[in-house]
Amino acid sequence: METTILKLGGSVITDKDSPETVDDASLNSVLDAVATTSDTDGRLVVVHGGGSFGHVHAAEHGVSTTDGTHEAAAANQIHAAMKRLNRQVVDRLHDRGVEALPVHPLSVAARDERGKLSLPATAAAGLLDEDFVPVLHGDVIVHAGEGLTVLSGDEIVTSLADSLNANRVGLCSTVPGVLDEDDAVIEEIRSFKDVESVLGASESTDVSGGMAGKVRELLSLGAPAHIFGPEAVEAFLDGDDPGTRIDGR
Amino acid sequence: METTILKLGGSVITDKDSPETVDDASLNSVLDAVATTSDTDGRLVVVHGGGSFGHVHAAEHGVSTTDGTHEAAAANQIHAAMKRLNRQVVDRLHDRGVEALPVHPLSVAARDERGKLSLPATAAAGLLDEDFVPVLHGDVIVHAGEGLTVLSGDEIVTSLADSLNANRVGLCSTVPGVLDEDDAVIEEIRSFKDVESVLGASESTDVSGGMAGKVRELLSLGAPAHIFGPEAVEAFLDGDDPGTRIDGR
Repeated sequence: METTILKLGGSVITDKDSPETVDDASLNSVLDAVATTSDTDGRLVVVHGGGSFGHVHAAEHGVSTTDGTHEAAAANQIHAAMKRLNRQVVDRLHDRGVEALPVHPLSVAARDERGKLSLPATAAAGLLDEDFVPVLHGDVIVHAGEGLTVLSGDEIVTSLADSLNANRVGLCSTVPGVLDEDDAVIEEIRSFKDVESVLGASESTDVSGGMAGKVRELLSLGAPAHIFGPEAVEAFLDGDDPGTRIDGR
Repeated sequence: METTILKLGGSVITDKDSPETVDDASLNSVLDAVATTSDTDGRLVVVHGGGSFGHVHAAEHGVSTTDGTHEAAAANQIHAAMKRLNRQVVDRLHDRGVEALPVHPLSVAARDERGKLSLPATAAAGLLDEDFVPVLHGDVIVHAGEGLTVLSGDEIVTSLADSLNANRVGLCSTVPGVLDEDDAVIEEIRSFKDVESVLGASESTDVSGGMAGKVRELLSLGAPAHIFGPEAVEAFLDGDDPGTRIDGR
């Protein structure tokens, strides 16, 4: 049976300009698409970003993917905000008949001194085997020597694609794909050289948001990935190739 | 450095007769004891039971350690109630200067078809290494063939004692220890034969609450365990031997 990972960008499902505010119309529309296709045979994992829930608190406490905090209460504010957003996603999936359950990365994952992520997929894999839809999210996690740092939704996708042997990965963002010089969607990327002139070197971008780093990560996966806009979630879940197809295999 | 696991029984920290009600005086008193001793050198894991938060919802949906549900929304009601209790414990530990962080078993653990538990301690171990106090709780977890079943706090204790190589395990319950025929606290149990006449055969007791099954589990640990009442938490964390010492090594 096929395993699909769908990442919903924080900017898609929240109003980034307003603290802890869900973008109702946009979230409902992508979850409708999930519900429409979820009665098919496949196994689905949903991962969502932080948007205006996580980022506000993370910025307030100066916590990023590399700079940590040893203050448990500060970290737990970020974590609790992300759980509130996750609860909204999970509850709205239940409203649509999708058997979703929350999986909170702080409970599962850790980084070593070099920042390398371990995220055992025991619970997520078990939930998939029982026909549930695990819903993960960007979070704070323990980081050796740093206390707690941010784990981005994109890092979760990369880790789970590997540990769950995913067949397809979809990243729903606010743009309809990776854009070229003329803002047209690039249909396919097979190597980073194809797009280096457009995206620039990946070193200059941040871990959580930069498109160059994202493309490089997705090229390293053992499965094809797609980057597309909110209107294309249903097409992606139906097996089509919307947006930009990224396949470095 | 010593690793200690402290289990707080659901009956100790909640009012069992009143749905989703914390026993303020009792919870505050045991957490005061944790705070008093937490500035010492050791590593501490706190595990708490469900009391009137988890059990009410579990009973309502007919979910136990062996009988599961495939309804995600029902299971998530139990899970969310347990997270509300966990939040109370974690927040009150922060109020007392203890660097506590939540670890939710549904996100981590799974049972196989035979009910055998896998609970990777990646996050809990990482948190301990960074001087945090992980706080786990009874929960629902995925169970192959059953959907989701209850994971008791006692099962978590047994699993973590092993995976974290704990040096000491303490179970704070509403009784001051394992009692003999005259209701006097038995000081030490080295084998089940010592207490079989008092406790009866372990087969006849339930997984989550029965004392005979609990004693048998604790005898199988690689570390000494203590069963004691709420007034003895500080003594236990100070390294004393309150209540009943159980050591089958």
